[in-house]
Amino acid sequence: MDVYERLKELDIELPEAPAPVGKFLPFRQVGNVLFASGQGSFYKDHRIEGKVGADVTLEEAQLGARYCIINMLAALHSSLGDLNRIRKVVKLLAFVSSDDQFFAQPAVVNGASQLLIDIWGEDGRHARSAIATNTLPANLSVEIEAIFELK
Amino acid sequence: MDVYERLKELDIELPEAPAPVGKFLPFRQVGNVLFASGQGSFYKDHRIEGKVGADVTLEEAQLGARYCIINMLAALHSSLGDLNRIRKVVKLLAFVSSDDQFFAQPAVVNGASQLLIDIWGEDGRHARSAIATNTLPANLSVEIEAIFELK
Amino acid sequence: MDVYERLKELDIELPEAPAPVGKFLPFRQVGNVLFASGQGSFYKDHRIEGKVGADVTLEEAQLGARYCIINMLAALHSSLGDLNRIRKVVKLLAFVSSDDQFFAQPAVVNGASQLLIDIWGEDGRHARSAIATNTLPANLSVEIEAIFELK
Repeated sequence: MDVYERLKELDIELPEAPAPVGKFLPFRQVGNVLFASGQGSFYKDHRIEGKVGADVTLEEAQLGARYCIINMLAALHSSLGDLNRIRKVVKLLAFVSSDDQFFAQPAVVNGASQLLIDIWGEDGRHARSAIATNTLPANLSVEIEAIFELK
Repeated sequence: MDVYERLKELDIELPEAPAPVGKFLPFRQVGNVLFASGQGSFYKDHRIEGKVGADVTLEEAQLGARYCIINMLAALHSSLGDLNRIRKVVKLLAFVSSDDQFFAQPAVVNGASQLLIDIWGEDGRHARSAIATNTLPANLSVEIEAIFELK
Repeated sequence: MDVYERLKELDIELPEAPAPVGKFLPFRQVGNVLFASGQGSFYKDHRIEGKVGADVTLEEAQLGARYCIINMLAALHSSLGDLNRIRKVVKLLAFVSSDDQFFAQPAVVNGASQLLIDIWGEDGRHARSAIATNTLPANLSVEIEAIFELK
């Protein structure tokens, strides 16, 4: 399986890698474990921002979670060089900017998890935590960091 | 030491493994490191829910933190097959749904940490962060994810 | 490079290692990966506390993020024995107690990231997520946990 062919089949165009908005790297590797920095819920000029349950619907937030993964793949493509080096997805830690009465963070983050499964199949399945926050950097609605295993 | 005997001594009955409420696995393993998904503060039908410091007392929340670990062990028992494969607890990352004026998240999470120490002794000791959030999935009061080392 | 000489050049005096306010260890190691517990934004008697954007300015919070790292180094010095055993910084996960209208968590956490780069240079660069929360333990403004690679 070639990741880039699979992305084409899924009609996903990787954007330019988002420039880190701070003094950090897109990822760090220890042995064959890759720790990827948090990525936010925008795609090119389309931003999913504000609190889910108040400013943003569940469906918009799910799209936002998907955007986080697309940005992460763009960042890894740019800095790692070849997404085919990824063997499997290990874990997501996802934060959802949430109204106090919004409790469906897992449904939001499914937008990210489904995309990883669509790309890598069984190897795309992962451990996960979906957490609420009262706000997020740049007022984005979702931020997701991840751990991958490399070949 | 047999973990199941120890659980019996501590009068802990593992419930059915909670079904993941989303598209994720109970854990992923890389080498001998196991990343366990976040688990919430309920035991069978008893739910600890709402904001600590407003809807929930410290004592109830400590019980909720304990429930998170019991659910995690149930999930690992079910998916890993044998809890005796765990060598030591590495780290907890714990989130406590908190009123803005509640600052004792570490005391809440001690309910989880103490249980791990009760079960595994020195091997149950771990690194930890205890973090507040404004809300959590399903309005539960505590969610905890963990890293374990396997034998 | 000797870390202690570098700290002296940067005019940083490590405080006493903060006593963990809970039933946990300052760090746990698996192989050559060290998981460090969350540390808070105080230095000796100087506490940076309250919500950034409301009670605390960006500049104070950046200092608070720096304090988190200084406390972490003090804790690792005390429990690991020798900071020169650190090969590189892998990842930070940083939480900033934030007013709902404060969106510059990455700028806050740069206070921590810059210090790590000042100490270790390229080896101090790291993956990172900067997340908001509505409050934090002991009402501190910043809490940061980290992963290091050891030699």
